[in-house]
Amino acid sequence: MVNPPHNPHAEWEAQALSELDGKPPASLETTTREQIVVKPLYTAADVGGTNPEQLFPGVFPYVRGPYATMHVGKPWTIRQYAGFSTAEASNEFYKQALAGGQRGLSVAFDLATHRGYDSDHPRVIGDVGKAGVAIDSVEDMKALFQDIDLAKISVSMTMNGAVLPVLAAFIVAAEESGVEATKLRGTIQNDILKEFMVRNTYIYPPEPSLRIVADVIDYVSREMPNFNSISISGYHMHEAGAPADLELAFTLADGIEYVRTALSKGLGVDEFAPRLSFFFAVGMDLFMEVAKLRAARKIWATEMERLFQPKDPRSLLLRTHCQTSGVSLAQRDPLNNIVRTTVEALAAVLGGTQSLHTNGYDEAVSLPTDTAARIARNTQLILQHETGITRTADPLGGSYLVEALTEGLVQRAKVVMAEVEALGGMRVAVQQGFPKQMIERAATLRQGQIDRGEEVVIGVNRYVASEAEPVEVRVIDNEAVRATQVQRLRQLKLARNAEAVQKALLALTDAARSGAANLLKLSVQAMRVRATVGEVSLALEQVYGRYEAHIPTVKGVYGGPLFKDPEWQGLRSRVSEFALAEGRQPRILIVKLGQDGHDRGARLMAAGLADLGFDVDVGPLFSTPGEAAAQAVDNDVHVVGVSTQAGAHLTLVSELLSELSSRGASNIAVVCGGIIPPADHSVLLSRGVKAIFGPGARVAEAASTILNALGAK
Amino acid sequence: MVNPPHNPHAEWEAQALSELDGKPPASLETTTREQIVVKPLYTAADVGGTNPEQLFPGVFPYVRGPYATMHVGKPWTIRQYAGFSTAEASNEFYKQALAGGQRGLSVAFDLATHRGYDSDHPRVIGDVGKAGVAIDSVEDMKALFQDIDLAKISVSMTMNGAVLPVLAAFIVAAEESGVEATKLRGTIQNDILKEFMVRNTYIYPPEPSLRIVADVIDYVSREMPNFNSISISGYHMHEAGAPADLELAFTLADGIEYVRTALSKGLGVDEFAPRLSFFFAVGMDLFMEVAKLRAARKIWATEMERLFQPKDPRSLLLRTHCQTSGVSLAQRDPLNNIVRTTVEALAAVLGGTQSLHTNGYDEAVSLPTDTAARIARNTQLILQHETGITRTADPLGGSYLVEALTEGLVQRAKVVMAEVEALGGMRVAVQQGFPKQMIERAATLRQGQIDRGEEVVIGVNRYVASEAEPVEVRVIDNEAVRATQVQRLRQLKLARNAEAVQKALLALTDAARSGAANLLKLSVQAMRVRATVGEVSLALEQVYGRYEAHIPTVKGVYGGPLFKDPEWQGLRSRVSEFALAEGRQPRILIVKLGQDGHDRGARLMAAGLADLGFDVDVGPLFSTPGEAAAQAVDNDVHVVGVSTQAGAHLTLVSELLSELSSRGASNIAVVCGGIIPPADHSVLLSRGVKAIFGPGARVAEAASTILNALGAK
Repeated sequence: MVNPPHNPHAEWEAQALSELDGKPPASLETTTREQIVVKPLYTAADVGGTNPEQLFPGVFPYVRGPYATMHVGKPWTIRQYAGFSTAEASNEFYKQALAGGQRGLSVAFDLATHRGYDSDHPRVIGDVGKAGVAIDSVEDMKALFQDIDLAKISVSMTMNGAVLPVLAAFIVAAEESGVEATKLRGTIQNDILKEFMVRNTYIYPPEPSLRIVADVIDYVSREMPNFNSISISGYHMHEAGAPADLELAFTLADGIEYVRTALSKGLGVDEFAPRLSFFFAVGMDLFMEVAKLRAARKIWATEMERLFQPKDPRSLLLRTHCQTSGVSLAQRDPLNNIVRTTVEALAAVLGGTQSLHTNGYDEAVSLPTDTAARIARNTQLILQHETGITRTADPLGGSYLVEALTEGLVQRAKVVMAEVEALGGMRVAVQQGFPKQMIERAATLRQGQIDRGEEVVIGVNRYVASEAEPVEVRVIDNEAVRATQVQRLRQLKLARNAEAVQKALLALTDAARSGAANLLKLSVQAMRVRATVGEVSLALEQVYGRYEAHIPTVKGVYGGPLFKDPEWQGLRSRVSEFALAEGRQPRILIVKLGQDGHDRGARLMAAGLADLGFDVDVGPLFSTPGEAAAQAVDNDVHVVGVSTQAGAHLTLVSELLSELSSRGASNIAVVCGGIIPPADHSVLLSRGVKAIFGPGARVAEAASTILNALGAK
Repeated sequence: MVNPPHNPHAEWEAQALSELDGKPPASLETTTREQIVVKPLYTAADVGGTNPEQLFPGVFPYVRGPYATMHVGKPWTIRQYAGFSTAEASNEFYKQALAGGQRGLSVAFDLATHRGYDSDHPRVIGDVGKAGVAIDSVEDMKALFQDIDLAKISVSMTMNGAVLPVLAAFIVAAEESGVEATKLRGTIQNDILKEFMVRNTYIYPPEPSLRIVADVIDYVSREMPNFNSISISGYHMHEAGAPADLELAFTLADGIEYVRTALSKGLGVDEFAPRLSFFFAVGMDLFMEVAKLRAARKIWATEMERLFQPKDPRSLLLRTHCQTSGVSLAQRDPLNNIVRTTVEALAAVLGGTQSLHTNGYDEAVSLPTDTAARIARNTQLILQHETGITRTADPLGGSYLVEALTEGLVQRAKVVMAEVEALGGMRVAVQQGFPKQMIERAATLRQGQIDRGEEVVIGVNRYVASEAEPVEVRVIDNEAVRATQVQRLRQLKLARNAEAVQKALLALTDAARSGAANLLKLSVQAMRVRATVGEVSLALEQVYGRYEAHIPTVKGVYGGPLFKDPEWQGLRSRVSEFALAEGRQPRILIVKLGQDGHDRGARLMAAGLADLGFDVDVGPLFSTPGEAAAQAVDNDVHVVGVSTQAGAHLTLVSELLSELSSRGASNIAVVCGGIIPPADHSVLLSRGVKAIFGPGARVAEAASTILNALGAK
């Protein structure tokens, strides 16, 4: 007879030793990207210090959720981020999605709109309607929400750079459809700090940008009591490669900076803090991501309490939207992405999110098709209706692992937040490039691990499907969209009262200079008289200027661990031989064209190629093809590498080729990387592009192909 | 300033009351299919009585897992169940799967093999090679494992009815390829009790069937120390509609019955108990399914301890294979099934399974295509490599909800197990039909809830995709497979020593009569001299006979809750009017044709139609088309309903139509339901079938269509 043991922990140790052939259980410990050591077993002893039994959802410090009943009875809001082409096309898509079970809208704007250009501006030729919907005026905004009751459906808008004219257009469109601002529900992203770190859809420099944030918070707090005045976003940090500790730390530090900014406008903390909201990514590390959302709530509640002593408990609550991770998706064998998105959606839900976007399985290739959008939405519906996970608030509460990871992340994030405070807060840290470089370093380390096969991505660097399966792709005819928008702008300008517009725009420029009035209030007045997004943006640009970022790429992080790798050594030799033969290193200009600011891939490739011995120039963001060609000729490069994530490659790369040709520089090779649907490859190659890399391409593969294209041995 | 609360539980209550507009939190309680009341919040107070802090993986009672290190360092075995067509075709598929990351094999045999018929037997014309691979002899088994090292790759075989000749063929095939039986690793299902309850691939009556089980356990314990002698299976109960408590109770009670059977052969408990293994389904109720596996381990360890006092701790360990649920998959919008399978796979892993099969997304329609099989396998690979869930043993350990559900299921299952004991154990309970009826009752209740929309299935009864998307389907040419097999049997019989075969078969028949020798040992001898699967089965059938089950369907369970439903009332009126006009109730014969024993759908439809007022005959399982036609004519039915799950519908239904016609009974309508690929619909309809229902069809839909087909008003 086997008796129940008296010391189960000792028995576990003995059993583990035997299973490990005498090696200690600690040999199974792993260190995560957050530098947290995860043990092979967690028990009550691991969480004793944190008193998890004292944690309740809806109760300070809100680790188990901001609300007492959480998803029980009323699950999270299914809010899919979408928008493309014209306002009419997007409106049609929204109405279908609402009929298909979606509960809230989330608008994706095109990059022209993000960067404050009207669709007829010469710098945005490739961008109109591509990665989001083109919105130039109140008329477009009205078309976008045609037949959708804005008093009932909440609307989230991902807008930062051009937040003033876009939010103003929304307010006016609602007002003209009979819905007062006080009734509007939803969220405006309005988070400019992270744009300077990772996403790059800023317009003005940091200082005036923060003033705009504050004006929006101020206005929304007073005029739109059911609207979230900001969505403080870690999502894009995660997508740029930040581990959970950095995503947490920089996002919460951003939040604190915004609170200080709003306080400096003379608002009381309880006047605006209840309408602050957050936005996190959820990646593949299931329990870490759950712990991230729990840790975020705890840090926010305790820091708000410590720093600002609010009286309203709602000022302590971190409410969040989540989105599954785009970078976790693979272009190869895309149905695998349904598995990934399911795991990530589950992490968001079990972490206690208030709303969720799930990505389409084809989004590593293009905007989602109708099928991919439906399956993405169904992923959430299945979790809500078929899995029983909404029966209980915080179903993982008490799990020794989850509680320990939560506390581990709290500690890690607080260390980084203290560093930010020591620098003088996020406003200063961002201007110094500190968070961007921390994130880029982590991203480069990780990409190296994937490229070296130390981190496995199924179907990409292990178990690659032999058959290439064709994927249906959503195609946007951006030239047609642009033509429509240009025509509409012309009509708008003919029909409006030019004098009233002029006056409204002057008032904006004056206020930008003086700092005297609320810029959102003035923007609403301008949009009412049918000023355009581009005109309002320009009215402020006249005072603030457009911002250009200059932050060096990381060195040695990618190449360092590969120093003894035979493939890497071989490439270094080829670069040396090329340099001997040519009298100089192979020189590459890496550019982003148009308004696409996603520079993770470009900067990674720049860092990797530099470590191989390439002479690397990184072009300024938002170049036109002509500017890029001029820089390539001026710098006498051998090759231009175009990194494209926003779908404008056919237009912009073709123009780059002809700009090079017209400068007599057809000898400069052009290569492309990023998100390019397979069907476009042959088009680009036939126009003269030398090689195309998918989003999963290793630096070594790219380098080898580039060297081949340059005729190196 | 907000102070941390002193009584967080009271604060939670107050907060919940406010969120619920004054309703008490208990109003959010839900009752699961297991009759467990799930609360909106679990805290430390809910698990205090069970001392979860005393639980460790690898330590009695093994709630947190049978091994101390669980998936850390060595994850679960990816073992995909597959087999179709010929041994050569399946062998090719296995080798691809192993190259694609699979770690173990699991053989699906065709129904002819399951039921102990050679491929040339007239009763199996439609079944050869259809739902699994056709195996008639050692030669087929050798072809099945060509170029696969059986000393390294573990092989699971789902075989119960014809366990003797099939396991014998495996042993001989290995032996002739140079791998001794002592080195073989894997599992033989050999679980006959659940066949009588739910799966129906039995051959002989219960008593001799249990003797065969015992002989296999006896032989394997002595000769094959690394092979699991049985896989005690709850899977098929779950698939037949059993909630977790019934699946647990009947599976574990089966296990106890097998232990007693083996003990009665004179074996000591520690001689065989360490090689008993289990097989559970994992469905969509995420935390319930996790709790099920944890509860199973606890009950097994404590019951084995209490009843049999083993000395070897391994005799207490419940080790299990799991498979995601086939019935949870929908035929409509099949990519949704990737989401479902991901959730289920996660439940199996977090519950602590030792190996796992994940279903292909198209398996509600047909055998998986290569793409579906790859994505199913990748689902597991992604969980292993990309989610971090293998860093820690039992990551959910300590979760208040999971620990409470675990204990709740332990209690529920023990109540049912006590009922079984009171009846005299599973041997008796099964013969009385007790578990079958309990499961059928639960299944019918649930189907009613789905049909009434009370339980939501995305894409089936809510949010149905408007576009019907074509699904690629794996097509098996069973007539070609049969021709190949018939030819091979002919060659085999020409080449072998007929006298030796005769002698070996006679020895089997003698031993069946006398009970004196081990039947597996004699089967190995017979297969060595190239007796066939059918011959060995027949040698025993001469003594044991073939079993026919007679268990009535449940009454009132489906129709009861619909009594006041307008659609249901309308149908009842139509049935009454039909009866008035015809002078008798509409009469339907519901049949399964060929060797397909999956009768859940057939019995559900029978129960529902009977509740509507139909006069329902349920034909005996395993009818030939001729037998079914004769019964239809004898009973003078208006309509024959064919339920088909094994892919043989084209052959068998066509034959049924011509058998009816040749009996001058073409006026009897034929309708079909079950798993029928859309492409086959038009074929069946063109041959004279009146209507086809998918696996998601409601009884009311089916009834209405049948009444229309009968010309009822």
